[in-house]
Amino acid sequence: MQIIKSLRKMQLVSNQLRNKGYSIGFVPTMGALHEGHLSLMRKARQENDKVIVSIFVNPTQFGPKEDFKKYPRDFKTDARLCLKEKVDIIFYPSIKAMYPEGYKTYVEVEDLSDVLCGKFRRGHFRGVTTVVTKLFNLVWPNIAYFGQKDAQQAVIIKKMVEDLNIPVKIKVMPTIREKDGLAMSSRNKYLNSQERKKATILYKALRLAKNLINQGEDNPLKIKQKMYHLLKQEKLARVQYIEIVDLKDLRPLKKIIKKNTLIALAVFIGKTRLIDNLVI
Amino acid sequence: MQIIKSLRKMQLVSNQLRNKGYSIGFVPTMGALHEGHLSLMRKARQENDKVIVSIFVNPTQFGPKEDFKKYPRDFKTDARLCLKEKVDIIFYPSIKAMYPEGYKTYVEVEDLSDVLCGKFRRGHFRGVTTVVTKLFNLVWPNIAYFGQKDAQQAVIIKKMVEDLNIPVKIKVMPTIREKDGLAMSSRNKYLNSQERKKATILYKALRLAKNLINQGEDNPLKIKQKMYHLLKQEKLARVQYIEIVDLKDLRPLKKIIKKNTLIALAVFIGKTRLIDNLVI
Repeated sequence: MQIIKSLRKMQLVSNQLRNKGYSIGFVPTMGALHEGHLSLMRKARQENDKVIVSIFVNPTQFGPKEDFKKYPRDFKTDARLCLKEKVDIIFYPSIKAMYPEGYKTYVEVEDLSDVLCGKFRRGHFRGVTTVVTKLFNLVWPNIAYFGQKDAQQAVIIKKMVEDLNIPVKIKVMPTIREKDGLAMSSRNKYLNSQERKKATILYKALRLAKNLINQGEDNPLKIKQKMYHLLKQEKLARVQYIEIVDLKDLRPLKKIIKKNTLIALAVFIGKTRLIDNLVI
Repeated sequence: MQIIKSLRKMQLVSNQLRNKGYSIGFVPTMGALHEGHLSLMRKARQENDKVIVSIFVNPTQFGPKEDFKKYPRDFKTDARLCLKEKVDIIFYPSIKAMYPEGYKTYVEVEDLSDVLCGKFRRGHFRGVTTVVTKLFNLVWPNIAYFGQKDAQQAVIIKKMVEDLNIPVKIKVMPTIREKDGLAMSSRNKYLNSQERKKATILYKALRLAKNLINQGEDNPLKIKQKMYHLLKQEKLARVQYIEIVDLKDLRPLKKIIKKNTLIALAVFIGKTRLIDNLVI
């Protein structure tokens, strides 16, 4: 397994691989790898000749008051996990190389970036689409893999790739959950043991919504009310948003449709902000 | 010479050419081709195995009150000129294919897009950087050629390519002028015969500035004053801006530096807005 830090070298190596006819599967990450990331690597390993994983905690997707500094970083453990998954290359660039002094260029997907998480994390998705564009230009993958846990991110990246005609196929893989239902996330590390137990409330609220829909409830307002009610019973939880939207354009639904309904929520458990979602 | 309208086909053909080891030189244009464009094609022809010219009047770089509708279009003549220059492929996409309904993604270079022409043409450079990103993803060139006549555009595209790590080399070629000094431009067609004669005033003002600098004048304000004075004497002319800036960051200079000084101006001749520049 090769570890590449230089942007120029990454571009050169990718170019050589593509010229030799190898297909490249790419998993962009911010490190602090968990089973969710590993499931993407395994899929990439199945479907491509070469697998490249990037590890880069991207400053432009964090707000000034967010957790950029304390975001978990453990390159040694991450590298060991990548090796185990038979990753060919870890791309591990520095912030200075990715955003040199005087950096000025941003990619933005309008509308989709301003709702759900984007409403509370201004500029977050602009940072995501910008870094993903850069990584695609550096890694030149055939297929890139993202997790359904970040549902809005996946929708936005697909839209960006379509709009800008980027020659990369985007695959979105299912959310991986702990046994008790909590969606895997690098930020779960922030939870203390009490919070960790209570964090299952997000998935419970989503299951409640799913059951209501299965029972024939088609009014999103009523579903959201019942989800709020459930979440209110947990004192450690503070809801940021619950939304029921069309997965295609992220617009709120006035009535449940049977296909492509995204139920998404963001909830603080103590000081830790967690997100989760289900697609019906 | 092949004419390709489909985006998918363009991407496929480019991919095939690159896989065969051919280098691709690319000249993006809005058609209404003149000697300036042809000089770029000749350079591309010299330096690459394959030459691709795009012809696309890009709606996102025109303001609502600008000349998108009346912008000169003559595909037949353009195609004849391309054939003469031994162009391999004309890429001639439709607006609907480039910007389908629900299009949402834009690329923006901050700061550089808000000065000079950008101050008066809000959103113009965002349209340029967006379409150039799309065209690069469709044509996959090794080298792309732009004219120095659009100096700010060239600076912004170079910055975008650098920032987003786009694997394309940008070459900026000298402005081509009529015998009397007028910079070649598709918009010169808007001028009536009287206006056409008077339009040389832009280049005269630039020459004046150059002479002043050569004589040792190092105060940009004084140089601009003398340029304004000259331009005021022409009744058909109305100055939009005269700026003397650092070519690297487009910031106004307080004192003339010997290298990379960009003198740029935009002047209405009658109702036609013309731009020109010199780099000292």
